[in-house]
Amino acid sequence: MAETTLIRGGLLVTAAEETPADVLIEGERVAAVAARGSEAAEAWARGGAEVIDAEGHYVIPGGVDAHTHMEMPFGGTYASDTFETGTRAAAWGGTTTIVDFAVQRAGESLRASVDAWHAKADGACAIDYGFHAIVGDAVPDALKELDALVDEGITSFKMFMAYPGVFYSDDGRILRTMQRAAANGGLMMMHAENGLAIDVLVEQALAEGRTGPEAHGQVRRELLESEAVHRAVRLAQVAGAPLYIVHVSAGQAVEEIARARDDGLNVFAETCPQYLYLSVDDLARPDFEGAKYVCSTPLRPREHQEMLWRALRTGDLSVVSTDHCPFCFKGQKELGLGDFSKIPNGMPGVEHRMDLLHQAVLDGRISRRRWIELACAAPARMFGLYPRKGTIAPGADADIVVYDPGAGHVLSAGTHHMNVDYSAYEGLHVTGEARTVLSRGRVVVDRGAYTGVAGHGRFVRRGLCGELI
Amino acid sequence: MAETTLIRGGLLVTAAEETPADVLIEGERVAAVAARGSEAAEAWARGGAEVIDAEGHYVIPGGVDAHTHMEMPFGGTYASDTFETGTRAAAWGGTTTIVDFAVQRAGESLRASVDAWHAKADGACAIDYGFHAIVGDAVPDALKELDALVDEGITSFKMFMAYPGVFYSDDGRILRTMQRAAANGGLMMMHAENGLAIDVLVEQALAEGRTGPEAHGQVRRELLESEAVHRAVRLAQVAGAPLYIVHVSAGQAVEEIARARDDGLNVFAETCPQYLYLSVDDLARPDFEGAKYVCSTPLRPREHQEMLWRALRTGDLSVVSTDHCPFCFKGQKELGLGDFSKIPNGMPGVEHRMDLLHQAVLDGRISRRRWIELACAAPARMFGLYPRKGTIAPGADADIVVYDPGAGHVLSAGTHHMNVDYSAYEGLHVTGEARTVLSRGRVVVDRGAYTGVAGHGRFVRRGLCGELI
Amino acid sequence: MAETTLIRGGLLVTAAEETPADVLIEGERVAAVAARGSEAAEAWARGGAEVIDAEGHYVIPGGVDAHTHMEMPFGGTYASDTFETGTRAAAWGGTTTIVDFAVQRAGESLRASVDAWHAKADGACAIDYGFHAIVGDAVPDALKELDALVDEGITSFKMFMAYPGVFYSDDGRILRTMQRAAANGGLMMMHAENGLAIDVLVEQALAEGRTGPEAHGQVRRELLESEAVHRAVRLAQVAGAPLYIVHVSAGQAVEEIARARDDGLNVFAETCPQYLYLSVDDLARPDFEGAKYVCSTPLRPREHQEMLWRALRTGDLSVVSTDHCPFCFKGQKELGLGDFSKIPNGMPGVEHRMDLLHQAVLDGRISRRRWIELACAAPARMFGLYPRKGTIAPGADADIVVYDPGAGHVLSAGTHHMNVDYSAYEGLHVTGEARTVLSRGRVVVDRGAYTGVAGHGRFVRRGLCGELI
Amino acid sequence: MAETTLIRGGLLVTAAEETPADVLIEGERVAAVAARGSEAAEAWARGGAEVIDAEGHYVIPGGVDAHTHMEMPFGGTYASDTFETGTRAAAWGGTTTIVDFAVQRAGESLRASVDAWHAKADGACAIDYGFHAIVGDAVPDALKELDALVDEGITSFKMFMAYPGVFYSDDGRILRTMQRAAANGGLMMMHAENGLAIDVLVEQALAEGRTGPEAHGQVRRELLESEAVHRAVRLAQVAGAPLYIVHVSAGQAVEEIARARDDGLNVFAETCPQYLYLSVDDLARPDFEGAKYVCSTPLRPREHQEMLWRALRTGDLSVVSTDHCPFCFKGQKELGLGDFSKIPNGMPGVEHRMDLLHQAVLDGRISRRRWIELACAAPARMFGLYPRKGTIAPGADADIVVYDPGAGHVLSAGTHHMNVDYSAYEGLHVTGEARTVLSRGRVVVDRGAYTGVAGHGRFVRRGLCGELI
Repeated sequence: MAETTLIRGGLLVTAAEETPADVLIEGERVAAVAARGSEAAEAWARGGAEVIDAEGHYVIPGGVDAHTHMEMPFGGTYASDTFETGTRAAAWGGTTTIVDFAVQRAGESLRASVDAWHAKADGACAIDYGFHAIVGDAVPDALKELDALVDEGITSFKMFMAYPGVFYSDDGRILRTMQRAAANGGLMMMHAENGLAIDVLVEQALAEGRTGPEAHGQVRRELLESEAVHRAVRLAQVAGAPLYIVHVSAGQAVEEIARARDDGLNVFAETCPQYLYLSVDDLARPDFEGAKYVCSTPLRPREHQEMLWRALRTGDLSVVSTDHCPFCFKGQKELGLGDFSKIPNGMPGVEHRMDLLHQAVLDGRISRRRWIELACAAPARMFGLYPRKGTIAPGADADIVVYDPGAGHVLSAGTHHMNVDYSAYEGLHVTGEARTVLSRGRVVVDRGAYTGVAGHGRFVRRGLCGELI
Repeated sequence: MAETTLIRGGLLVTAAEETPADVLIEGERVAAVAARGSEAAEAWARGGAEVIDAEGHYVIPGGVDAHTHMEMPFGGTYASDTFETGTRAAAWGGTTTIVDFAVQRAGESLRASVDAWHAKADGACAIDYGFHAIVGDAVPDALKELDALVDEGITSFKMFMAYPGVFYSDDGRILRTMQRAAANGGLMMMHAENGLAIDVLVEQALAEGRTGPEAHGQVRRELLESEAVHRAVRLAQVAGAPLYIVHVSAGQAVEEIARARDDGLNVFAETCPQYLYLSVDDLARPDFEGAKYVCSTPLRPREHQEMLWRALRTGDLSVVSTDHCPFCFKGQKELGLGDFSKIPNGMPGVEHRMDLLHQAVLDGRISRRRWIELACAAPARMFGLYPRKGTIAPGADADIVVYDPGAGHVLSAGTHHMNVDYSAYEGLHVTGEARTVLSRGRVVVDRGAYTGVAGHGRFVRRGLCGELI
Repeated sequence: MAETTLIRGGLLVTAAEETPADVLIEGERVAAVAARGSEAAEAWARGGAEVIDAEGHYVIPGGVDAHTHMEMPFGGTYASDTFETGTRAAAWGGTTTIVDFAVQRAGESLRASVDAWHAKADGACAIDYGFHAIVGDAVPDALKELDALVDEGITSFKMFMAYPGVFYSDDGRILRTMQRAAANGGLMMMHAENGLAIDVLVEQALAEGRTGPEAHGQVRRELLESEAVHRAVRLAQVAGAPLYIVHVSAGQAVEEIARARDDGLNVFAETCPQYLYLSVDDLARPDFEGAKYVCSTPLRPREHQEMLWRALRTGDLSVVSTDHCPFCFKGQKELGLGDFSKIPNGMPGVEHRMDLLHQAVLDGRISRRRWIELACAAPARMFGLYPRKGTIAPGADADIVVYDPGAGHVLSAGTHHMNVDYSAYEGLHVTGEARTVLSRGRVVVDRGAYTGVAGHGRFVRRGLCGELI
Repeated sequence: MAETTLIRGGLLVTAAEETPADVLIEGERVAAVAARGSEAAEAWARGGAEVIDAEGHYVIPGGVDAHTHMEMPFGGTYASDTFETGTRAAAWGGTTTIVDFAVQRAGESLRASVDAWHAKADGACAIDYGFHAIVGDAVPDALKELDALVDEGITSFKMFMAYPGVFYSDDGRILRTMQRAAANGGLMMMHAENGLAIDVLVEQALAEGRTGPEAHGQVRRELLESEAVHRAVRLAQVAGAPLYIVHVSAGQAVEEIARARDDGLNVFAETCPQYLYLSVDDLARPDFEGAKYVCSTPLRPREHQEMLWRALRTGDLSVVSTDHCPFCFKGQKELGLGDFSKIPNGMPGVEHRMDLLHQAVLDGRISRRRWIELACAAPARMFGLYPRKGTIAPGADADIVVYDPGAGHVLSAGTHHMNVDYSAYEGLHVTGEARTVLSRGRVVVDRGAYTGVAGHGRFVRRGLCGELI
């Protein structure tokens, strides 16, 4: 008989409903859910299960962060979080699944890239993880490999319309890959920025002496994001493939996505907390501090935030991920001193997503149910993890957070658990915090103590996208 | 200790997930849900509950039909289903809650209208029911009554832009009522057709000798539906009130709704099975048979169906209701022989909604989860019944259907249970049927036998709309 | 042989081209146009015609103001300009044709209203004039009269969706009138504001003690303008009639018009200088000064100006008229002291339109050709006056302005010629001025002197709209 | 004293007006225009000018065809019309100005390409001509050359998003060229099709054995045209440059253009008669006859024609050009037997544009004035030729057509004057024909006789685009 745990007395909040209910865990799975005070619940309480008291707390599904880059190679350096440090930080923040990216480089097979990423993550992770495949060299042989990846549970393929000479794929390669995805059921993910045009503006900015981080936001024009979104949508239509746009930041890009969705296309998109809380004002911080805020797509003028929040409510944006890709200010971000184009692109964030979105609940921007939808259920459905992840239901993995909605705390590099020397939200006060975090039935964080272990987290074979209409 | 029932072995399908799970009912409520084969589930099976075998079946929430008109006075006659016959037919079809409309007439108080409808329904219903209030005479005194209705659980108010001289309200009255709704949290429902313009076209059609039922579809122009939708949206914006458009049938109307929703407005809409399956071709049936298909908004040309299905997938249409309002062909529809404008407006349908939408699942138009969303969860959330109705979760009312997805049958006046002498779908073969239907824990239909009783169904006090963004 | 006049040495500017050319007038008409320096031009110069030297000046068509209200009854008083004073002021400002409105009141025939307006204008006007018919009581008998009006050269019919109880028509009457226009070729003009909804807000504002002129701008919500525009468009579609929206002021209204035009509908619109240069800031001027700026549609927040200018460039707005309807501050505007709803609606402007639009040329907002298009050619084409009015071409009426593009002057009640005690543009410096103005070949204004005579101006029978696509 | 000609008795039709007027030509220019029957006109008649009788005819500006490819190298062969044969055919059809394209090839300077095209055209042309520059290799040195071209009167630059490996430019090169155009006032012209994606589909079609001409229409997907239009618009916005889209054929592309224009952008577009009168049905003609209809963008399904006509009315399409680029069926089109991708792209048409658009006037699709706008005035304004070309006004070049609106004739390779062995409109009956054609005052075609001479036509230095808003 499996070990049983009973989470008792909390308000169960899923994307579907809020209800006072107790959760019974048998081993690694949720066995049952019972109404508070029902005979069934009372029977469990008498049954000798280990009891976690959730009185006054929310009982929510563990977060699913569908966009992280642990140990990501970029611009001659590596993202500073390993799978070990990064997944531990995620657990601290109430996230119990990440989907990271295996990167195929030019000349390399997808197989090799996936194997390399398995090697990095295997035995290192505090929580469960999956992989997307970055298709960096969409030669015919690589396209053939995609079907096998789907069979292995790597069911989403990311391409870049940005970064010529690095990750960039031209429209012909994109179309071929989308056709392959249409055939095998994989979900195409797109970094949508017109990289060729941006590179012209980068060159011109540097030639004009605009070399600081603020220029990063100026050259990566909003219209060059929305253009690429539109192009990706049309190519996906031609291929008959669903499409997921990553890290949307510009209001104009949202407009293109809304238009596609009104037409009934299977087009989806995510945004990230940094686009909801930060802006070009941060890129313009003095003393090269703006470099901390260099990521792509870039932060936008403050008025775009309102458009993103609205789209999160209307459903034109389905998911909030972090695009967690931290580089230390010292030694890493500093590579771009005097040339913003050499600043490694990326920001830390995996630890704060659940709290920043809960703050939005308190601020009246989204409902409690929408919080769970955006942070847990939708990414899980989108990437074939649902209902195993992203909800609390009989049969689901017991990835559960007992969340204290009233716990105020301050985000800071001094207290966070990510392996990076700065916080993008330094000094920001938020209310709400994960008190107890369970990963597949095991408590990994409890009342300010990390009780997990590297290697507990397992690779998850994902199914196909569950959001198609 | 309450009586317990265990529904065992089925596939639990809610709007949120599909999972093999057993459902434990204590008294009138769902007590708990457990993964099939879990220790918890096994313990229940050993516990002596009455067991309903759902092997090979879906276990779904009972349907919620948010738009019915039992005993509705219209055009000098009454809808032919009483609350007794109508709710019994609903139960046969797997619908366990209806929300009907109390009709305020000119010169009458809302109080009087609500009391009258309570009197009709009380003790008569097979399943639970609620009321919307039709505001037919929005004088200042009536507006004052609205707050009290919200307190009594009548939390939605319907007005008509159609039917001048009968239910019609002008824009000034509509704005005032919307302002009141904005203040007290009620949800405005709108029959959106430009009645003044339609009446001009009716008069002209009759003058030209176009007197048959097909003229009904010609004069109620699609643009006069979409115009009214747009107007209602703008008035609601001015009032700051949420808005729900009833029985949308024209593609152009959907476009206006989509536009409003893209702008982040709290605008919602329903369509009905007749608009998804029938068309103006039916209105043109010979021998006055077209009269059977006279309802308003009218049936549209066939190509509109595709637009409605798409909107049901994209979420621009949130709900499928029936607008059940049956009139017998003999003696009632015949009132309009020689003058289509005298044909009572309305069609029977409360019994077939669940099956017609399940057929759409089989036809690949919507997913299984979306079926439950459209027919159960969304109407329940929209009208303040969720999660008590519309889902199967701990604490919810035990309104549950054991649904046989493979049971083929033919819709026909010869076999249906509605009190009307024709079927709008006569001869249509559909696959899928409610096998066992529970209302608040009591089996009311089982394997072709009605086991319920008039008066089991109770009036439900509804909360405020749960869909606001 | 007719008297001949030669306008020599100027730059001929029409909506179609700019070219250095001399204009030969024979009697009341333009006989010919010749390239400067051509043999033909030289021959004319030798031919003994009276010569008007236009060196350094523009030679432009006289302005066509398609929207004026001389002696208009409103709110218990009359617009302060008579046809004599108003048309003289128009001439001063380079406008040589006005189209005014004959007002049908409830219970009155259209015939009577047109006769009354003829009586007012006959023998009084300095320049030519036409009439639109305001259909204030669209009873069946009135609709029958419309065909005759078209035959008499009154080829446009205006209705009001605003002002319930005064000019207001409901949607049924509007539809019937549009159908009549569709049949007889008349152009429907619409004051598009939802008057029923506005009246609710007026009543509430007054009840709340918001009684000053600024409340006028608050209650006449932008959405209630755009709503009415949309409704008018849809009714016109149903009727199959072209539509012209008067005095558009809200950006949202422009959006509805653009949408209709993208769909290829015959929908047109005008705006007025007051919406381009003034704003709600003026309505909020202290000491009841805001009353000077009360007109309907109302002035809007400043940011709408940019949308209107853009639409004037894109063609979504076709015409700039004045809606000239002056009321003196003393004794007239003051009727609304303590109750903004009693302030007579209207502003003076007929004298300044040409200059204010020329200023826009200097400000880089529109081209010189577009200036003439908006102020002369388009209104003439729209209302069946072209090419007799609105251009300088062989055969056209010799309504010509020699315009000094460099003459700076200041707009002021102290210097203007309109019969009203204030200027809406008091103190505004503009560059450009009509130096010499000819009406049908006769000089009526020259170098600061009025040389015209009351009664020179004749009623013009207009043809049908020349803008239909 | 210059030789004078008087065109007498016709109806003068320009884009601006229709008026019975006589036209006086002095030498190569229009000297003057006089109202029929005026003293001025009578004086001319008595003055001894050579008189051309235009009684019962239209007197219209000579056509301006802004898109022709004489002797164009493509796919290993050359367009079959030389400047001599092609301009002669143009004259026959009432077109008196063409703007052809000088083609820069990879590795070549723009200077060299322009010189080469001058050499081809010099001394050969029957009518006036100008050049656009095709930027085929936008290296930095080439961009520097663009300013000089503007000074020489070559004020428009065309690039290709189609034809990778041939004319194709990537988005970086396009952006740089647009930036140069924004600086020097040149107008960017774009062949908007996503060539990289199309090449994938071409390869797949051939691999699947779909090798006939109909496949040409299948692989060049409509969405790949509209995608490219949108991309070009966004790049032009980033560069701050105006944009002109050539040969628009897909309704979806029109939609993108309309959207850009609604936003007030300087975006313009043309379509061609083949897209208005022919369709994919022609591409599917048996016996390889479809090859006659191979051009890019390709012919579209018939329903797109309606969208194009509508856009010609609404102004979303500004110009009708021919994209005249003829290849003989024998020996040239046949290069693509067994492989549609080897069929030279292009169709003959320069001779028929005026008549096909006049037919549209008769068919009620466009007005007479719009005919002249689309075929004469708008292309002249767009490409800096106005008012020298494109209208009949004092000072303009005397490029005039006396057009017989009632002359029926049949289009056929047997009777046309283009140097190509087939007609795309073989057997089509049209009504209306150029009777007398003047180029700079000289009669070049008269009553079925060619009276012109090679070399009469001169290169025209064009000014900047005159359509900017």
